Amino acid sequence: MTPGAKPSDDTAAQPLRSDAERNRERIIAAARTVFARDGLSASMASVAREAGVGIATIFRRFPTKEELVAAVFSDRMDAYADAVANALEDPDPWHGFVGYIEAACAMQAADYGFADVLTMTFPTAKALEQRRNEAYEAMLQLIDRAKATGRLREDFDPSDLVLIHMANAGVVNATGGAAPDAWRRVVALFIQSLETPARGPLPASPEHDALYRAMLRASPTDLTSQEPGKNG
Amino acid sequence: MTPGAKPSDDTAAQPLRSDAERNRERIIAAARTVFARDGLSASMASVAREAGVGIATIFRRFPTKEELVAAVFSDRMDAYADAVANALEDPDPWHGFVGYIEAACAMQAADYGFADVLTMTFPTAKALEQRRNEAYEAMLQLIDRAKATGRLREDFDPSDLVLIHMANAGVVNATGGAAPDAWRRVVALFIQSLETPARGPLPASPEHDALYRAMLRASPTDLTSQEPGKNG
Repeated sequence: MTPGAKPSDDTAAQPLRSDAERNRERIIAAARTVFARDGLSASMASVAREAGVGIATIFRRFPTKEELVAAVFSDRMDAYADAVANALEDPDPWHGFVGYIEAACAMQAADYGFADVLTMTFPTAKALEQRRNEAYEAMLQLIDRAKATGRLREDFDPSDLVLIHMANAGVVNATGGAAPDAWRRVVALFIQSLETPARGPLPASPEHDALYRAMLRASPTDLTSQEPGKNG
Repeated sequence: MTPGAKPSDDTAAQPLRSDAERNRERIIAAARTVFARDGLSASMASVAREAGVGIATIFRRFPTKEELVAAVFSDRMDAYADAVANALEDPDPWHGFVGYIEAACAMQAADYGFADVLTMTFPTAKALEQRRNEAYEAMLQLIDRAKATGRLREDFDPSDLVLIHMANAGVVNATGGAAPDAWRRVVALFIQSLETPARGPLPASPEHDALYRAMLRASPTDLTSQEPGKNG
């Protein structure tokens, strides 16, 4: 369940030499710091500076920024998937649903990088996307159960969670350390808007494909464009 | 009411020579395009490229990015202030309040740069900030009237509008052209959460000073840092 820790990962079929392994860990730790502080738009160059290695070393280990992002956030995505699983175990489905939204938005507030990860998709980061898909499947169950209690409005769409994460990322990024709890009020308003009886109809949800395209392009900078000569 | 058009502006006490004036208009038009497309984090260099002038020309005309932002968005800020004034004339204060939120969020959706402007503050851009302050005073009246009808929840705080704009900017920036109407659903949920009877209490609003500091720092890059040797 923690793919990054398994030496038998298919992306690392032969064990790395120990200095190479140390370099890898150092880069991941540096990237964790930089992404948490600056979000995913942080450059590979600033990760290299934080790690105290040359940028060529980073690109040798992580040929695309997407691979680095996947390595850095695999544990957060695990925690996110766990939050959905925990919510499913709540005997009160509405309470579980609300607690899950609060927990997921709190994860965004704690880490600007992860705030971005939850509003984006990384087609080449297979392990990360698989965990996200597992979380998504569990979330569909959570939503169905919350609707079955009659407390979650019937027109709630799974894509609304993506929109909430996009909105929350906007608040978290804009308020940051200056007003670190401001997001709680926004999320509380959202949750209150979801409880029955609905106050009125809503504009249609975006089409699934459109939202997927949005998540592909949500990054402030194209995540793979910093690798010279690729995806050009 | 349109300060940029008055040749007697104190920032342009002597009329500009006509080629200088043409350069100024060209830079503003280019910046409008670039900010609308990329938001305020766009670099002065990309504005220079779009305008087809050297970056030195831009800095001669607009010594700080803040001055350029103020020149570009003065008309949008006028439109924003007008939207509040129009809302105050609505015979139904709740309807006026809701219409104003929708109109202001639509302005954000139409222009990524303005989406950022509404969540930031520009202390040195006096004319822009004065218009914003006028809009703010009118908005306080709008809120009071909407509460007096009993339809706007009593614990609604003027700072909630800033938070809504931050959230909406997050959705607008993340969905962009891929799902250009997604923000409408988010804003509709917000508005429904504001109508009485309130579903429950809310976490406290951020302190005024904290939110102001957040608006000062909301820019993805420090707006004045690109001027060499200043504000260092």
